[in-house]
Amino acid sequence: MIESHHWNEECGVFGIVGHPRAAELTYLGLYALQHRGQEGAGIATFDGQRYHEHKRLGLVSDIFDPGTLGRLEGSSAVGHTRYSTTGSTVLPNVQPLVANLHHQAVALAHNGNIVDARMVRAGLEDGGAIFQTSMDSEVVLHLMARSRHRETERRLADALDRIHGAHSLVLLAGDTLFAAKDPKGIRPLCIGELDKGGWIVASESCALDIVDAGFVRELDPGEIVGLAPGTSPRTVRRAPEGERAACIFEAIYFTRPDSILFGRTTGAARVALGRQLAVEAPAPGADVVISVPDSSNAAAQGYSQESGVPLGHGLIRNHYVGRTFIKPSQGIRDLSARIKYNPVRDVVRDRSVVVVDDSIVRGTTVRKLVAMVRSAGAREVHFRVSSSPIVGPCYYGIDTPDERELIGARNTIDEIEKIVSADTLRYLSIEGMKKAVGNGSGFCTACFDRDYPVPVAERLDKAILEKS
Amino acid sequence: MIESHHWNEECGVFGIVGHPRAAELTYLGLYALQHRGQEGAGIATFDGQRYHEHKRLGLVSDIFDPGTLGRLEGSSAVGHTRYSTTGSTVLPNVQPLVANLHHQAVALAHNGNIVDARMVRAGLEDGGAIFQTSMDSEVVLHLMARSRHRETERRLADALDRIHGAHSLVLLAGDTLFAAKDPKGIRPLCIGELDKGGWIVASESCALDIVDAGFVRELDPGEIVGLAPGTSPRTVRRAPEGERAACIFEAIYFTRPDSILFGRTTGAARVALGRQLAVEAPAPGADVVISVPDSSNAAAQGYSQESGVPLGHGLIRNHYVGRTFIKPSQGIRDLSARIKYNPVRDVVRDRSVVVVDDSIVRGTTVRKLVAMVRSAGAREVHFRVSSSPIVGPCYYGIDTPDERELIGARNTIDEIEKIVSADTLRYLSIEGMKKAVGNGSGFCTACFDRDYPVPVAERLDKAILEKS
Amino acid sequence: MIESHHWNEECGVFGIVGHPRAAELTYLGLYALQHRGQEGAGIATFDGQRYHEHKRLGLVSDIFDPGTLGRLEGSSAVGHTRYSTTGSTVLPNVQPLVANLHHQAVALAHNGNIVDARMVRAGLEDGGAIFQTSMDSEVVLHLMARSRHRETERRLADALDRIHGAHSLVLLAGDTLFAAKDPKGIRPLCIGELDKGGWIVASESCALDIVDAGFVRELDPGEIVGLAPGTSPRTVRRAPEGERAACIFEAIYFTRPDSILFGRTTGAARVALGRQLAVEAPAPGADVVISVPDSSNAAAQGYSQESGVPLGHGLIRNHYVGRTFIKPSQGIRDLSARIKYNPVRDVVRDRSVVVVDDSIVRGTTVRKLVAMVRSAGAREVHFRVSSSPIVGPCYYGIDTPDERELIGARNTIDEIEKIVSADTLRYLSIEGMKKAVGNGSGFCTACFDRDYPVPVAERLDKAILEKS
Amino acid sequence: MIESHHWNEECGVFGIVGHPRAAELTYLGLYALQHRGQEGAGIATFDGQRYHEHKRLGLVSDIFDPGTLGRLEGSSAVGHTRYSTTGSTVLPNVQPLVANLHHQAVALAHNGNIVDARMVRAGLEDGGAIFQTSMDSEVVLHLMARSRHRETERRLADALDRIHGAHSLVLLAGDTLFAAKDPKGIRPLCIGELDKGGWIVASESCALDIVDAGFVRELDPGEIVGLAPGTSPRTVRRAPEGERAACIFEAIYFTRPDSILFGRTTGAARVALGRQLAVEAPAPGADVVISVPDSSNAAAQGYSQESGVPLGHGLIRNHYVGRTFIKPSQGIRDLSARIKYNPVRDVVRDRSVVVVDDSIVRGTTVRKLVAMVRSAGAREVHFRVSSSPIVGPCYYGIDTPDERELIGARNTIDEIEKIVSADTLRYLSIEGMKKAVGNGSGFCTACFDRDYPVPVAERLDKAILEKS
Repeated sequence: MIESHHWNEECGVFGIVGHPRAAELTYLGLYALQHRGQEGAGIATFDGQRYHEHKRLGLVSDIFDPGTLGRLEGSSAVGHTRYSTTGSTVLPNVQPLVANLHHQAVALAHNGNIVDARMVRAGLEDGGAIFQTSMDSEVVLHLMARSRHRETERRLADALDRIHGAHSLVLLAGDTLFAAKDPKGIRPLCIGELDKGGWIVASESCALDIVDAGFVRELDPGEIVGLAPGTSPRTVRRAPEGERAACIFEAIYFTRPDSILFGRTTGAARVALGRQLAVEAPAPGADVVISVPDSSNAAAQGYSQESGVPLGHGLIRNHYVGRTFIKPSQGIRDLSARIKYNPVRDVVRDRSVVVVDDSIVRGTTVRKLVAMVRSAGAREVHFRVSSSPIVGPCYYGIDTPDERELIGARNTIDEIEKIVSADTLRYLSIEGMKKAVGNGSGFCTACFDRDYPVPVAERLDKAILEKS
Repeated sequence: MIESHHWNEECGVFGIVGHPRAAELTYLGLYALQHRGQEGAGIATFDGQRYHEHKRLGLVSDIFDPGTLGRLEGSSAVGHTRYSTTGSTVLPNVQPLVANLHHQAVALAHNGNIVDARMVRAGLEDGGAIFQTSMDSEVVLHLMARSRHRETERRLADALDRIHGAHSLVLLAGDTLFAAKDPKGIRPLCIGELDKGGWIVASESCALDIVDAGFVRELDPGEIVGLAPGTSPRTVRRAPEGERAACIFEAIYFTRPDSILFGRTTGAARVALGRQLAVEAPAPGADVVISVPDSSNAAAQGYSQESGVPLGHGLIRNHYVGRTFIKPSQGIRDLSARIKYNPVRDVVRDRSVVVVDDSIVRGTTVRKLVAMVRSAGAREVHFRVSSSPIVGPCYYGIDTPDERELIGARNTIDEIEKIVSADTLRYLSIEGMKKAVGNGSGFCTACFDRDYPVPVAERLDKAILEKS
Repeated sequence: MIESHHWNEECGVFGIVGHPRAAELTYLGLYALQHRGQEGAGIATFDGQRYHEHKRLGLVSDIFDPGTLGRLEGSSAVGHTRYSTTGSTVLPNVQPLVANLHHQAVALAHNGNIVDARMVRAGLEDGGAIFQTSMDSEVVLHLMARSRHRETERRLADALDRIHGAHSLVLLAGDTLFAAKDPKGIRPLCIGELDKGGWIVASESCALDIVDAGFVRELDPGEIVGLAPGTSPRTVRRAPEGERAACIFEAIYFTRPDSILFGRTTGAARVALGRQLAVEAPAPGADVVISVPDSSNAAAQGYSQESGVPLGHGLIRNHYVGRTFIKPSQGIRDLSARIKYNPVRDVVRDRSVVVVDDSIVRGTTVRKLVAMVRSAGAREVHFRVSSSPIVGPCYYGIDTPDERELIGARNTIDEIEKIVSADTLRYLSIEGMKKAVGNGSGFCTACFDRDYPVPVAERLDKAILEKS
Repeated sequence: MIESHHWNEECGVFGIVGHPRAAELTYLGLYALQHRGQEGAGIATFDGQRYHEHKRLGLVSDIFDPGTLGRLEGSSAVGHTRYSTTGSTVLPNVQPLVANLHHQAVALAHNGNIVDARMVRAGLEDGGAIFQTSMDSEVVLHLMARSRHRETERRLADALDRIHGAHSLVLLAGDTLFAAKDPKGIRPLCIGELDKGGWIVASESCALDIVDAGFVRELDPGEIVGLAPGTSPRTVRRAPEGERAACIFEAIYFTRPDSILFGRTTGAARVALGRQLAVEAPAPGADVVISVPDSSNAAAQGYSQESGVPLGHGLIRNHYVGRTFIKPSQGIRDLSARIKYNPVRDVVRDRSVVVVDDSIVRGTTVRKLVAMVRSAGAREVHFRVSSSPIVGPCYYGIDTPDERELIGARNTIDEIEKIVSADTLRYLSIEGMKKAVGNGSGFCTACFDRDYPVPVAERLDKAILEKS
C-alpha cells in the first residue's frame, strides 16, 4: 500500500435501532465512514432472539454482499470500521465485539483509545478473566461482566468509570442502543433520527445524510444516552463537570468536509483555516494556488479567496490507488508520490505556485511534491500548511508514527523549509487554528503543543497487547 | 455497482520495449490508465523466448501482485485495461490477446471498435478460422495469420487495410513493438521515450509521466510505427490522405486532465470549455459555482474565472465506491446518487447555485443532483453543461446506452430543464466546444450531431458476438 | 455431502514436545487421525516466547501448506481434528483453544464431551466469565483461570475435578505437555516416544506410526501425565479408584484398523468380531461373503475364515466422495448410496450373498445396499452385523442422531429384516462383542444397552450452547 | 502431492443426449470416472440455443456446486476429467473444447493421444490456423473447421482420417452426440441407454451404473456412432478392416473393478490375473497373502484362492491423501510411502508374507513397502506382481515417466528383487496376462514388449506443444 502522508484515524462507529433493515442502513453508514478506517469492518445485528455478525478485513464495499447483509437479520445493529497498523490487523481484532454477559448479550463498537487499558486488563486477568483479543475495547466488556449491577446501563456506567482516555462508543443490548462519550469528549459522536421512531448514532453526520436521517445533536462530553425505538433519547448519565477537549485534528483533516462538527460543516472550517493561513502567511507575487487533493481543497480555496491569488488544479490525484498497490522495485526510482499525484504542467509552468496542504507528518511526501511541481516547470514553490507543526504523538485514538519520525518535532520551520526544498514554507499558528475552527477553546491540541488533557501513564503499544 | 452517469471508455493500451522491468512499468502505466477501463486488465511480456501473460477481471491494483509481476519476465510488454458492459465481462475477453501465428507469436492490445468486425469474422469462419473470443480485436489476428506476407509489419498493414472503424493498437512481436492508429485517428495514442533506448506507446501521456518517460509525440492518423530498443521510431506506413476525426469527447471527459491531447493538457482544455460556457450561458445573480466532482472541476473553475462568481465545494464525492457496491433494496428510497455525492449545506444554503457538469447522458443523476442541492437549502439551481446535448450513440469504442435512453436525443433543452427540475439549464454549443478544445476542425462530434466519419453498416451488438 | 451411514467421532487430538519440527509432525499426526473428524483442524505451537496457531474448516491436507506450517514455529505443539454437525461448524469452534491465563498461556485440544458443561458454564458466567465459543472444552480453561493455584498442573487437576463426562485431552503449557483421561477412560489416548527425548500424545497409535515414534502405552483412566523434553513421562495424578468404561465402539468402528487398542490392533479385533458373528449367525448355503468397504473388510474376512464361505469384492467404494458432493435433485432417483458404492455383477449374480457390515444406525443405507446387491443379480441377501443393535444415543463424544432415528431403538431384529428387505438379518450379541474385543469387561456399551457409566443430567444440545 | 506408484490415465469422457438434467448426470458420470483423471474437469451443455461450459482444475466434487450445475442448462452435454503432468496443468488445457465452426458450434472431449498431432498442427498453422491450447485434441477441431463438407459427421470423419494414434472421443453438435474410437480401439468407450430415449457414451460402464443407465455395448474399433434422443444409435461409419489393439493395462489397473471391459468386469479379470500369478509364481511356505490396497485387492484375492494361503489386511491405506499433501522436509525421514500406507503388525508379525501388487513402475514405492512390512515384523516378504515388467513408455494416452525411470526396462527380475530387498519377487508372464484377461489376442501390450501397434514418428512432448 502507498503510505498515506497523513495521520490515520482509528475507527468509525455506527448504531441503529428501530428500522427493519438495520443491517442495510448500517452498511451505508459504514460506507460513509470508510475514511475513518479502511483495514476492516463489521456489523452485528440483533433479531429479537440472537445476534448475527459479519466482520472481515478489507473495505466495506468488499466485505458485504447481498447474501451477507440478508443474513444479518434484525431491526437493531452496530457497525465499525477499523484502521490499524499492519502488525495488529488480524480478524479477531475487528469490531463489533459480541459477548455473552450471561444475563444479556451485547455488541460493542468503539472509537478511541483507553490509555490505562493494560493495567486494567492485568487486574482482570488476575481475577480469572480470559481475553480473546488485544483490543483495549475488550476491557469494557469484562468490566461490565463483573459489575455488581444487573441493568446493562449501570454496568456500562460502572465500566466507563474505571477507564480513562478517549472513547466514543455504541453498545447494543438487545433492542436498546447506548452511546457514550468520554468526559473530555475527545472523539466526535452524534445522534440522528429516522422516520417512524428509529434512532441512529454515528461518528459523523455524513453517515446520517446517506441514510436520510435527520441530524439531532452531538453527544456531550461524558454523556451516556440510551435509545429505544419509538421513544425519545434518554440521557442515562449527564456529563461530569470538566473541560471539553475535543480533537482539533478532526476539523483540520479527519472528518469528512460535509460532516457537522462544532456546529458547522468541517468544509466551512477548512475554508476558514485557509483564509486565516493567507492572513498569517501570505505569498507575495504568487501566480496560482494549488491544493494537495482532496483533503486540502477547501483550505486552498480559502487561501485563494483571502489572498486573491487564483486557484488552479495543479496536482491530479489517482483515486484508484488500491490497498495492495505494489511498491516498485529498487531499480525504478521512487514513485510512491508519483503513483498518487501527477502535476499538470499547463497550470504550474513558469509560475510562482502556492501549494496548500492541511498538515505535515513525516515530510517525505512534501519533499516529493515540491520536487514534482518544480520538475513540471514551476518557477517558485511556496508551501503553506493549514495547521501547526506536529510535535507530539496522539494517545487518544490516532495511529501515530514514532515521535522521531515527526519532522515538526525535530526541526524548526526554517529547517523543514530546507529539507523539503521549498522556496518558502509556512504553518498556521495554534491560535490561528483555534480561532478558525471555533470559539477558540475546548480543543485538544496535544499533538501541536504536547499539552495532554488525559494523563498517559503507560505508552500504548499495540504489540504488547497482542496475544502472547 | 453504482452506475456512472457518464459514458464509459472501453480501453487503455500500453506497450514497452527495451526495459529490463517491462512488466513493472506496464503495471504502473495501466494503473495510470485505470480510468479508461475498470472491468479487467492484462499484461503480456516477451522474454526473448516465450510470452508470459496474466489477465483478470478487476482493478489493476487488485489483479497484480509481486509474484505475478515477477513471473512476467522480459524486456518488452503490452498491457490493456478494459471496460465492458456486464454481459460481456468474461475472462476470455480480457486483452492482451496472445496468439501463435506459426512463424511469429504476437500479443495485441486494442482500443476502439472495428465497425465491420462481424462481417469480416463471418468470412474468416467460412474459411475455417476458429474464434476464441467475442472481441472484434480477434479479427486482426486471424487476418494477420492468413496474410500472404511473412514479415509481421506487412501482415499487420494487410490486416488493418481490411477493417474499418476506430483502432488505436499496440502489437508486440518479440522485441519489436508496433503501434497503429486508424485513418481518422479517432482514439488517442502517443509515443514516449525512456532513458537508455527504451520506448513506450500509451493511450495517454499520463502513463508516460508515471514511469518518468518523456513525451515524444502523438501518432498521426493512419500511421503504423515500429519501435525497437536502441533505435529511433520507424514509421512503417504513413497516414493515407484524409480528414482527421479525433474524438472530441476525449478532451471533454475521458482523458485524464494531466494528459496531453491536441497539444496541451485536457485540464487546460476543460478550463477553456468552462470559460466558453460562462460566455454562452451566464447565470446572472448567481452566488456560487460548484462542480460535480471530480471530472467537472476544471470546467467549473473556468466558469468561475470567466463569470467572476466564486467557486465553492458544494458536493462531496465518496471515492470508496467499490465495484461491488450493493444497491439498497426497494424499501429504502433511491440512494444511488447519494451514495456517491453528498451536498455541503454551508456552501449552498440560501444561495443561487450554478452546478457545472461536463456532460449529460441519461439525465437521471442530474435530476437527483439538482434535488439534492435544493434539499440542502439552495435557493436556485442553475445547471450548466460544458458540452452539447448528446443525440446519438458512439460506434467507435465508447460503451453507449441505448439511443432511447439518451435524454438529449428525445428532448429539447427546455424539456430537459423541466425534467431535471433546474431553474435554468444550458448546454455549450458545438461550435463553442470546437473552439474551446482546439483549432475548431478535425474532430469527431458524431454523438453531438450524428455526423459519423466512418460509415456504420452494422449495429455493433456485443451479445451477438458472444460465443453462441 | 453424502451422509455417512455410520456414527461420527467428534475429535482426534495430538500433542508433541521436544522436536524442532513440531508443527510438521503434528500435521502428519492429524493427517493420520483425519478419520476422527473431517470438519476442521488446527495446530498451535509454542516457540519459547509465544504461541502460533492456524485453524480452519476443512481437511487437514487442504488447511495447511508449507507457508502456514513454516509460520508455526516452535518445538512443541498441539493439534486437533474436529467433527461436528453442520449447525455448529463455525471457525471459532475449531480447536486448539489458545488462552492467556495471565501467568501462563496454554493451548488445549479435547476429545469427548463434558456432560455437565452447561451447568458449569452458567456458574462461571454468573461470576463474570465471558465465553467466546459454544464448545464444552472452553469451561476447562475458565475453570483453570479461576483456580487458586498457580502451577498449571494443579490448575488443570482442579478444573478436571469439577467436570464430568468423557475427556481425553492434551494441554500445552509452554514446553510442557499435559495429557489427561477422564476417570472412566472412555476415549482412547496413548503416549509415544521420539528419538532424542521428544514425546507425543495422540488419540490413536496410527498417529505415532506415521511420524516413526515408538508406542509406549495407553493412558490409564483418570490419569494426568506431564511430558517434557528429555525427561521421562511423569504421572501428575494417578487414576482415582473406579471401574474403567472404555468405549467399545472405538474397536468396532471408529479406530483405524492399524491402531493399537486394548493391547492389539483393532484390525485383529474386527477379524475376531467377524469370526464370532459367523459362530452366532451363520448363513447356511451362502456362496460368497462380501464386505461393505472399507470399515467392514476385517469383519467380513473373519466371517469368511470362520464360516469357510469364500470372500469376494462385491461392492466397490468410490473414495473420491468429497465433502461438498451435491445431492442430486428430486427428479433423479435417490443416488446417495449409489454414489458411494457400486455392486460388481460378476461377484454377486445368481449367488446367495452374505453382506457383512460393522453397525447399523438409521438403516436407510442398509436398505439401499440390499436393493443394490439384489438388482445386480444376487439370488439371496443375508445381512450380518458385527455389533449389536444400537438402542441409545452416546453422550460421551459421538455425534448421535436423534434417538427416534435409530432403527434398532424402535424395531425388533425381525422388523429390521423386513424393513431392509434382506432374506435374513442378524446382529452379534453384546456378550459376543465383549468376548471378541477383549477380556469381556471394562467397556462402555451404553449405546447397545443404555447402561450409561456417567450420569447425564442434561441433554447435550449443541444449538443451545451456540452464541445466543 | 504424494506421487502415485502407478501409471496415470489421462482422461475420462462422458456424453449424454435426451435428458432434462444433462449437466447433473454428466456430473455424476464424471464423478464415477474420477479415477481416470484428477487434475481438472469440465462440462459443456447445449440448451437448444447456445453452449454453457464450466471447467476448472481440481476434483469433480470440488469444481461443481448447485449454482454452477444450475447454470449448465440443456438436455445434452459432454464432460471430461483430465490427468496431466504438472507443467501442462493449466486451465486452457482442460476440456471439453467448445468451438464455433461457423455453421455449427461443437463441444469435444477426448481420451487418448494423437501421435502425429504436432505435424498436423504445423500444417494447419501454415494455413493460418490460430491454436489456443497445447492439446493434441484441438487439431480435430481445426481439421473439422477446414473440411469441405458441411455435415458435422462428415467433417468429423474427415478429421479423424487425417490423424493417427489413440482416440476415444465424444463430440456434441447441438442435440446430436457423436462417439468415435480409433481404428485399433486402444482406449475403452461404451454406449448406455436411459429411459425415455436418452443416450449416454462413457469411457467406462461404471459411469452408466451411477446414473442408472443400461449398458448397451462397447464401441468397435474405428467406429463412429451418432446418438440422438428418441432414435436408435446410428453407425455413421463402420470400422475399417484391421487388428484390434486394446490396451491391456486398462484391465490390469486403470479401469474401475466394477466396469465391464472385454465382456466382463475387470474385477473378475483381476481375480483371474491373481490366480494365474499363483500358478506361475507360487510362494511355498507362505503364511498370509496381503494386497497393496486398493487396486490389487482382487488380484490378491485370486492369489489366495488359487494358492490356498489365507488373505489378511496387512496394509492400511489412508484415503484422505489430498492433492496438496505437503512433502515433509528433508530433516524428517522419507515418509512418502508411510503417509499413504501403514502396516498392521498383528497380520504380518513373524510370518512369511506374500505381497501382491498389480504393477511396478519405478520400484521406489515397492522398496519402501517391503521395508515397511519387514519393520512390522514379517519373517519373509515375497513380492508378486500380477502383470509383466514394464519395459517401454506408452504413447497412446498414458502419462509415462521417462524410460530411464522404468525399473523393468533397465534391470532383470533378479536385480529388481535385490533392489527392493524382497526375499523373492516374481512377475506374471505376458502370455499369462493375455490368457487371464481375455481370449489371448487383440491387445496392445507395447509397454511390456515394445511392440507398438501404431507407429510413433515423433516423441510426444507436452512442453513443446505449450504456447510458446
